[in-house]
Amino acid sequence: MKNIGIAILGLGVVGGGTYKILTEHREFYKKVHGLDIAVESVLEINKERALSLGIKENTVADNIAEICSNPEVDIVVEAMGGVEPAKSYVLAALNAGKSVVTSNKELFCKYSHELEKSAKKNNCGLFYEASCGGGIPVIRSLLDNLQGNKILSLTGIINGTTNYILTKMNNEGASYSHALNEAKKLGYAEADSTADVEGYDAVYKLSILASLSFHTKVPYTEIFREGITNIDTVDISYGKKLGYALKLLAIGKNTDSGIEVRVHPAFISSAHPLASVNDSYNAVYITGDCVEDVMLYGRGAGASPTGSAIVGDIIYCASHDKFNYSTFDNNECPDPATKFIKNFESAYYLRLNAVDKAGVLSKVTSTLSKHNISVAQVIQDNENKRDKTVSIILTTHVTKEKNIGKAVAEINSAEGLADVVTVLRVVD
Amino acid sequence: MKNIGIAILGLGVVGGGTYKILTEHREFYKKVHGLDIAVESVLEINKERALSLGIKENTVADNIAEICSNPEVDIVVEAMGGVEPAKSYVLAALNAGKSVVTSNKELFCKYSHELEKSAKKNNCGLFYEASCGGGIPVIRSLLDNLQGNKILSLTGIINGTTNYILTKMNNEGASYSHALNEAKKLGYAEADSTADVEGYDAVYKLSILASLSFHTKVPYTEIFREGITNIDTVDISYGKKLGYALKLLAIGKNTDSGIEVRVHPAFISSAHPLASVNDSYNAVYITGDCVEDVMLYGRGAGASPTGSAIVGDIIYCASHDKFNYSTFDNNECPDPATKFIKNFESAYYLRLNAVDKAGVLSKVTSTLSKHNISVAQVIQDNENKRDKTVSIILTTHVTKEKNIGKAVAEINSAEGLADVVTVLRVVD
Repeated sequence: MKNIGIAILGLGVVGGGTYKILTEHREFYKKVHGLDIAVESVLEINKERALSLGIKENTVADNIAEICSNPEVDIVVEAMGGVEPAKSYVLAALNAGKSVVTSNKELFCKYSHELEKSAKKNNCGLFYEASCGGGIPVIRSLLDNLQGNKILSLTGIINGTTNYILTKMNNEGASYSHALNEAKKLGYAEADSTADVEGYDAVYKLSILASLSFHTKVPYTEIFREGITNIDTVDISYGKKLGYALKLLAIGKNTDSGIEVRVHPAFISSAHPLASVNDSYNAVYITGDCVEDVMLYGRGAGASPTGSAIVGDIIYCASHDKFNYSTFDNNECPDPATKFIKNFESAYYLRLNAVDKAGVLSKVTSTLSKHNISVAQVIQDNENKRDKTVSIILTTHVTKEKNIGKAVAEINSAEGLADVVTVLRVVD
Repeated sequence: MKNIGIAILGLGVVGGGTYKILTEHREFYKKVHGLDIAVESVLEINKERALSLGIKENTVADNIAEICSNPEVDIVVEAMGGVEPAKSYVLAALNAGKSVVTSNKELFCKYSHELEKSAKKNNCGLFYEASCGGGIPVIRSLLDNLQGNKILSLTGIINGTTNYILTKMNNEGASYSHALNEAKKLGYAEADSTADVEGYDAVYKLSILASLSFHTKVPYTEIFREGITNIDTVDISYGKKLGYALKLLAIGKNTDSGIEVRVHPAFISSAHPLASVNDSYNAVYITGDCVEDVMLYGRGAGASPTGSAIVGDIIYCASHDKFNYSTFDNNECPDPATKFIKNFESAYYLRLNAVDKAGVLSKVTSTLSKHNISVAQVIQDNENKRDKTVSIILTTHVTKEKNIGKAVAEINSAEGLADVVTVLRVVD
């Protein structure tokens, strides 16, 4: 039996969930893993919260130094979120020779290089499975299962809050603001939902997953980002008729001409496995040159699923003497040779309000054609005519993002004919 | 740069695929993993096959002893299939201090205890990710990601051949024999398809996955097995109307009263993520007490996806100095304390040919009721009446398997009323 002492920094949803799993499963881990894992110390400003979880007062540390100097602590779990003080605490723990398990996507995405360097120097483990996709085994699958592949692309639904909102808008025809409020009531969205609905959370996670997949640091600042705050239920319902589901997708592609990374709402065929990933579930769809298509699906958030990933890392860490690090940090950070594609290609969905008279559609399609955009499908919705204007729904074949921007600007500047009110990307 | 020498035993679909991946990715692995992985030796009876892959004549070994004594060989890939001579060769390699990567579910399922014992004794790695689910990262996810969970259940579509056949029957209304022939033409089914269509292949895989999940050896002999050879397209189409898809499912449950393991065709709600797993794709749906539901989906077979799993194991093995072994082999084999539930519970689908006269249905339902079977739904198909008989489709609430057996026998023994022609299980 090996004794493993744990310190948990932050007892919010994830830290509290981890504490609960570790204490409730202590006998189980002794039996099946030969590990006696005990929570020796916690760091939590809100002492009441710690006590309410059943933690004894003398287990609550006053500061990080106390944890770093505690010889009973082998592994430090960082579940505080945000950059500071989390970063300083993680570095302090590593410098004190403690291995670290973190669920902090923002911290790892922004400072993986510095943190891994310190972990290597101190011969410590640094694990971050819980940073992406909650309980879904995606980080270790990339590191230890699919590592023989050149990963060609990954497409993820990696934010539970936005997926809950979009599912509700899709299934119930709810408005964005109504769905957001529901998400807040159920605890799926925080009071300040910006990080989720504007796509920052997904951007951090995509930065981590794309870096691992493509073996080069993909800085989050290189990722194109668009949130879901402007999504209109009307477009979701037109999309449905066209056989699409709307999802906030995190897309990474590794092509001969460079790396393409983007987070934005997009229509995806309802036959695609990702289209059935609903509510707060997450999934990552990975295409490798050997494995072909793999999808990893599960709970992307929550105390218990995220705790599962943290505890998985703890047991892994406790069962290994030597640790490996993400290979992309062997490179400079970012590798100056890496090219990022900004003017990516996509198919598009456009909704226009158009004056209901002859020649308007022809004018619109000729403008699109001028910008090398070929129309795939046109629907004119005469049922919902208002003030002599009709809705025209257009889908295009694959074209460059910039072409769409120029064409839309030109259509909208020609007064009194048609206004493009919605532009959404359509992915395979 | 670390040099890793590989020997491949058997150059069929999987061995050949592995050879191709290793040779084509050699520079890539040097760059991203710091490993120079070279195929130093192969063992293949059909020398022509080896040469046609571009393997040099002096790389083809004459026998296993030659490979065991080759100091350039670090890892032996066993891709021969079957028990002998694979087992003797694997043991010889381990005894010679070579780590082993195998895709052989039958061998690992039947002899994991003996093989792991030998691997431990010789300080060698023994890896078998490729034995279950082709390229899907399921074994390592159970060992290194979900290992903090008590796994409550797993439900898998883990045989590509039968899933291809059932998908074809479902989507095109093809008969079983027509779909089987198509599968053979496309190379999805072997000339002798018994191992696939009778469920043996799925049984071997379930034995491995259930043993890992439940931390106790689950011998394949304890697994209830029923194949798909008697499936009638008519039932698939009635099931569709009821909102079900028919799949060959491998089910493992760990309950307070024991372990339940079975492989059989079953109806599953078309809303369940497993229902959309079509053609030769595989998926494993795992429920853990912390992670809740996780599904791992991908190509369950084929040269390149299975090769991906083998190469993943090779790189993992090459990057570790110390190896862990499956915890269930710490127990006796099987652990005498493990109870297996034989009389499991399920909901059922029954199709009856019944004389079209008053009282027949009432007689049938009263027989069911006598055996504690409560009816959920009844459909009488008057459109397809033949010779004064009609089809009656019944679904039941959850009941014991034995109750159904008794009730069906009693209904069928009452002459001239109704014959139960199909009994299929319905799972949640």
